[in-house]
Amino acid sequence: MSRKIPVLEIFGPTVQGEGIVAGQKTMFVRTGGCDYRCSWCDSAFTWDGSQKPTPMAASEIMMELEEKGGNRFSHVTISGGNPALHAGIADLLELFRDKGIESAVETQGSFWQDWLLAVDDVTISPKPPSSQMNTDWSRLDTFMTRLSERQKGNHSLKIVIFNEEDITYAKQVHNRYPGVPFYLQVGNDDLENPDPAHLRDQLLEKYEWLVERIMEDEQLNHVRVLPQIHALLWGNKQGV
Amino acid sequence: MSRKIPVLEIFGPTVQGEGIVAGQKTMFVRTGGCDYRCSWCDSAFTWDGSQKPTPMAASEIMMELEEKGGNRFSHVTISGGNPALHAGIADLLELFRDKGIESAVETQGSFWQDWLLAVDDVTISPKPPSSQMNTDWSRLDTFMTRLSERQKGNHSLKIVIFNEEDITYAKQVHNRYPGVPFYLQVGNDDLENPDPAHLRDQLLEKYEWLVERIMEDEQLNHVRVLPQIHALLWGNKQGV
Repeated sequence: MSRKIPVLEIFGPTVQGEGIVAGQKTMFVRTGGCDYRCSWCDSAFTWDGSQKPTPMAASEIMMELEEKGGNRFSHVTISGGNPALHAGIADLLELFRDKGIESAVETQGSFWQDWLLAVDDVTISPKPPSSQMNTDWSRLDTFMTRLSERQKGNHSLKIVIFNEEDITYAKQVHNRYPGVPFYLQVGNDDLENPDPAHLRDQLLEKYEWLVERIMEDEQLNHVRVLPQIHALLWGNKQGV
Repeated sequence: MSRKIPVLEIFGPTVQGEGIVAGQKTMFVRTGGCDYRCSWCDSAFTWDGSQKPTPMAASEIMMELEEKGGNRFSHVTISGGNPALHAGIADLLELFRDKGIESAVETQGSFWQDWLLAVDDVTISPKPPSSQMNTDWSRLDTFMTRLSERQKGNHSLKIVIFNEEDITYAKQVHNRYPGVPFYLQVGNDDLENPDPAHLRDQLLEKYEWLVERIMEDEQLNHVRVLPQIHALLWGNKQGV
């Protein structure tokens, strides 16, 4: 039980800004380290060396969650980086189970961990061409198969879209895993913008483009198109 | 099969702006007539006499959906007014079933129709004190019980919040139906504002208030707090 997890931030309660649990009141645990280097990553501080993660035991993370969230939460989102790099999250999920806390995890689907079977909502976010990453389809297939075999819990796909090429990629993913709830999210390519009001207008303009683009496309009917809610509210600020 | 449905608008495909299906690509059928007169109703034209509904058979509605949506949809939202006033929607749902179209309905839970059993996603939106309506709890209990007994399909609660009194009401609803997915949505009290950019800033300011208010509240943990996505995009415009 001494498997430490590298943690970059613990914050909340706040709203989940993305995907199938959008709007959910949740605490966030953000882990450090990623096997990807997405060109537009909005949490590059988790892997570019600019911020140093703290190795923490599950019990220490739980303590900090309770310190910050008090009795004001019943849901925790584990994000990264890629949290699926860290075996120790199994211990954290056990603590959640004991306390009746629901969990959500976001990962790109490149590494499997058996603890994913115990997560209430798994969001798999394969990265489109604009990220400059390559999808290992056979790894992703294995990942998706294991999730679809589990007895309880939900999983959904989420693709961040910057351009037309990304939409082609999204269709490929949607066709490959047709029964899985499918989310498209507009990308934020202005990560340095310090002005939330200005960023908000830009993001909504892009969101409107994506909505219109998807609405006219016969191959993308059973999809949901969402903005990043937290970015609309708080811009590029970290820790909200 | 001659039960006509009073229709005020048919439009789409567009995004569902609210609740558990937020972001979903969908067509809208908006029916006329309501047993309520909410002070802040954003679709008052469905009941205040300012627009006249067209009585349509289910087959005529289906034809118009296909005319407008082509092959670009697989989901239809039936909203109002209160669509549960109209028995003829049963016929429309049969057509949807034959064509493999998913359906969502939004209603305040004041009238039951057996066709609700055939709807994929039912959103029940009891109206808080700011609406100046009174909730008939025994009717709502019956409504919720019948939905919870059905074999398939989802249902969720959504409360529009304008003030502190509305939050107290929301807690009452949440406690009364604890297992039901529970959504809080910020209200729009500036329905005359013609400027989407100005309205957007106002709505996000109110949304931020609601988020902060709910985050500090120990009695509202298992909730989702959402803005109205379509209002952020298109303001008070009808038919989008």
